[in-house]
Amino acid sequence: MNTNNLIGYNYTKGGKAFKAIDPSSGAELAGDFYTVGLNDVDAALDLAEKAFETYRYTDKKTKAAFLRSVAEEINALGDELIERAMSESGLPQARLQGERGRTTGQLNLFADLVEEGSWVEAVINSALPDRTPAPRPDIRKMFIPIGPVVVFGASNFPLAFSVAGGDTVSALAAGCPVVVKAHPAHPGTSALVAEAIKKAAEKHQLPEGVFSILYDDSYTMGEALVKHPKTKIVTFTGSFKGGMALLKMAQQREVPIPVFAEMGSINPVILLPDALENRYAQIAEQYAASIALGAGQFCTNPGLLLALKSEGLNKFKNALSDAVAKINSSTMLTPGICKNYSKLSEEMLQEPGVSVVGRSGGLNTDKSNQALPIIAEVSASSFLVNPKLKEEVFGPYSLLVVADYEVQLQHVINALQGQLTASIVADETDLVKHKSLIQSLTNIAGRVILNNVPTGVEVVHSMQHGGPFPATSDSRFTSVGTGAIKRFVRPVSWQNWPDELLPDELKTGNPLEIWRFVDNKWGKD
Amino acid sequence: MNTNNLIGYNYTKGGKAFKAIDPSSGAELAGDFYTVGLNDVDAALDLAEKAFETYRYTDKKTKAAFLRSVAEEINALGDELIERAMSESGLPQARLQGERGRTTGQLNLFADLVEEGSWVEAVINSALPDRTPAPRPDIRKMFIPIGPVVVFGASNFPLAFSVAGGDTVSALAAGCPVVVKAHPAHPGTSALVAEAIKKAAEKHQLPEGVFSILYDDSYTMGEALVKHPKTKIVTFTGSFKGGMALLKMAQQREVPIPVFAEMGSINPVILLPDALENRYAQIAEQYAASIALGAGQFCTNPGLLLALKSEGLNKFKNALSDAVAKINSSTMLTPGICKNYSKLSEEMLQEPGVSVVGRSGGLNTDKSNQALPIIAEVSASSFLVNPKLKEEVFGPYSLLVVADYEVQLQHVINALQGQLTASIVADETDLVKHKSLIQSLTNIAGRVILNNVPTGVEVVHSMQHGGPFPATSDSRFTSVGTGAIKRFVRPVSWQNWPDELLPDELKTGNPLEIWRFVDNKWGKD
Repeated sequence: MNTNNLIGYNYTKGGKAFKAIDPSSGAELAGDFYTVGLNDVDAALDLAEKAFETYRYTDKKTKAAFLRSVAEEINALGDELIERAMSESGLPQARLQGERGRTTGQLNLFADLVEEGSWVEAVINSALPDRTPAPRPDIRKMFIPIGPVVVFGASNFPLAFSVAGGDTVSALAAGCPVVVKAHPAHPGTSALVAEAIKKAAEKHQLPEGVFSILYDDSYTMGEALVKHPKTKIVTFTGSFKGGMALLKMAQQREVPIPVFAEMGSINPVILLPDALENRYAQIAEQYAASIALGAGQFCTNPGLLLALKSEGLNKFKNALSDAVAKINSSTMLTPGICKNYSKLSEEMLQEPGVSVVGRSGGLNTDKSNQALPIIAEVSASSFLVNPKLKEEVFGPYSLLVVADYEVQLQHVINALQGQLTASIVADETDLVKHKSLIQSLTNIAGRVILNNVPTGVEVVHSMQHGGPFPATSDSRFTSVGTGAIKRFVRPVSWQNWPDELLPDELKTGNPLEIWRFVDNKWGKD
Repeated sequence: MNTNNLIGYNYTKGGKAFKAIDPSSGAELAGDFYTVGLNDVDAALDLAEKAFETYRYTDKKTKAAFLRSVAEEINALGDELIERAMSESGLPQARLQGERGRTTGQLNLFADLVEEGSWVEAVINSALPDRTPAPRPDIRKMFIPIGPVVVFGASNFPLAFSVAGGDTVSALAAGCPVVVKAHPAHPGTSALVAEAIKKAAEKHQLPEGVFSILYDDSYTMGEALVKHPKTKIVTFTGSFKGGMALLKMAQQREVPIPVFAEMGSINPVILLPDALENRYAQIAEQYAASIALGAGQFCTNPGLLLALKSEGLNKFKNALSDAVAKINSSTMLTPGICKNYSKLSEEMLQEPGVSVVGRSGGLNTDKSNQALPIIAEVSASSFLVNPKLKEEVFGPYSLLVVADYEVQLQHVINALQGQLTASIVADETDLVKHKSLIQSLTNIAGRVILNNVPTGVEVVHSMQHGGPFPATSDSRFTSVGTGAIKRFVRPVSWQNWPDELLPDELKTGNPLEIWRFVDNKWGKD
């Protein structure tokens, strides 16, 4: 493992050294990582800008082959990658193996997307030379890549939303070079994956600078990356505070740039009465598992359960309490995250009207930074007047809000901020009785779910992972699924150009055989 | 003509009165308009929010019929509309008749788009119940409207980018109610068109609040509209200063919202040597007309001509000088715009190294607020060191920048800010010789044009009217053409829902017969 900063194809050491920490023991892990200086930030972005002028025109077969090679190189890292990621994140082996599969799956999915080619949305209006009073020129439009992207690795997905994760792969697929700021919680995992990308880029002789990775354990370099004039787009997955800081910096630049910040969400789940009455035990098991999954460190963690007072609810609460009690503690990603979780969850329990429905008693005393799942409860009337209760508690915590009647439940939903997901647990009879409540879910969220848990974000064309502010900084885009490529492109029209000077995607005769919208007709003509 | 503010279906007077001015005479025109108070802003947005909950679900046939009725009602206004617009804008009859055709054409185009329905980009991934380790749920995605839109009427298109212009029609097509802030330069034209929209909305029994229009001759109401919590999106066409002020307000809200500001552009035109040598007279005629068109008050006005030193260029300059001299002065939109044009264009002529290539001598002394076309010239080396020369002069002014050699010309292009358009005038021999220069045009602009003028923005599916900052606040969207609808929508995914609870666009069997992407295949299945 080469732990140096990677700028283009060259490793460079950087300044002050830092080490990774194993959160399950608090011990330092092998390997020195070096915070970079501002000149290294310059060097990475200079190379990225130069690489862009070539890479944007790299043919789609080569781009697709490159992405597939990254997947192969990641798989070739074998157990070393999984073991390092386990040590750095505290996440269990099966989860990280699954996450590796998701990461390589994403790379292959975007390779397919790029190779197929229709994602550029080519639209053609042929000339009307005989139109009066003036002829209409030939106009053809498609998406082109915007330029170098800075990707902030996420703490909670050391593989799938980090160095070769969803942001990087969708940017590279679009034709944009990427400079990754490695998350300081898992620099070794990052270094291994970075080397895989480097090998793949070299194999396909891509221009130097198509990928770089820099390390830092403070905020200095992140700021320099966002403010750098050659940075065109920033992606970030993390806290509201972190995301907003980057967004403000980007807006205050001389030339403002987009920041796609996914800033978390409490993912409300509405539990309807008939479903609770008929299936309380199964729902309790399912949701206890979802709340505790990955130590609750998912952006789609169900942090808010909403229900109407009923006999079924009482049975559900008892079942949930039992289910949560049986779940053991698990290691959180970093000591800082764990400390925050303990502090915030205990603070929530001190808020007026909040009581405990259930909590885990299974503390693993052999390990450090353990999070214990907690389910709290509050009345809708207390919830409505207390903004603190609407804040995210990052970890295995969920608040059950109990409404006295349906209108009050609707008020609670209306009072929520933007969310990544909104779920409903309902039987058929519930769906008939609560139509307007169900319809209101699309007002607040990017994904609406029936009788499923919000955790588990499928990487498919139809996925929307993004929601109204403050869930994300821009509800019009997604960070998961093939739609994620749209964050890195803008449309350009070509007016009155001969075929030989048009991109292949726009040429008459459709040499790339992509789907196009030509003179008001969809087809492959 | 009812000159009161229109809030939903009710006219209300408002406070302080103001009148429209005929810029060609400076005289006040008939009719009192009334600036509204903050309570009227509240009332309009309350109604808009309520209307949204119905209008977003209004079936596509009704929405399309509504848009077509608006076009019919505008046509039914007949000469009264054209005459009022002429008096208020100083623009000639033929131009305004053409603009009316463009406006009704836009309405009908968006009606077709909505009725056809595929614009929602429905994407379906069917469930995989047998997938291991966990089944994959059914996931379906499409665009949904975001909410009330505030449209700032533009001064330079009293019909096509004003009350029922491109912003309004694309927002209404998306399913978003609209509150228009009428431009104070043409309140009478605005009132007439507003009444046409009201009649059409009433005819189709749309919810009250789907459209409102408010008048103001200061900045107070605009600020209140942008800061209002029920406003979800803002559109604006105007100056850089005005657009940036709105953008900052929107970013500083508790819940930030998008502002689509089109803030102007100098639209560089590269004149290559062989074309100039072979066609200097024709090019000079064509460009003199484009520069002076509509008193130069187009966002796509060619404000910057770039050329290499050559014998052909000298001939072109003489021809351009002759052509410009023959063009008469024309009335500008407002006294303020005219004053600014005179001041800025004369200031530019005082900048170091700037000389005059040609100017119109045809001042129409019968009319006020006359703009005289001016072509100035400067060397590339002077241009490169003087940021002031890169600023837009709103009016019939263009600056010719002369480079000594191709690399210097490339430096000039690289030094330009983002533009709506970039044009090239070239013969076939030029295209072969200057490939990399031509390729660099897509770096700076949203539309690249060969051997056409940038003025004349076709309203077609393939149009991109938008470019990198500061031409617009968001290069990823267009304000002209059917793509404009995308500014008002966001994607939502439905996970695991039965057919009867899905929008028709996403139902199995495709009852609306729209184009969809189902299980990786495009089609109408």
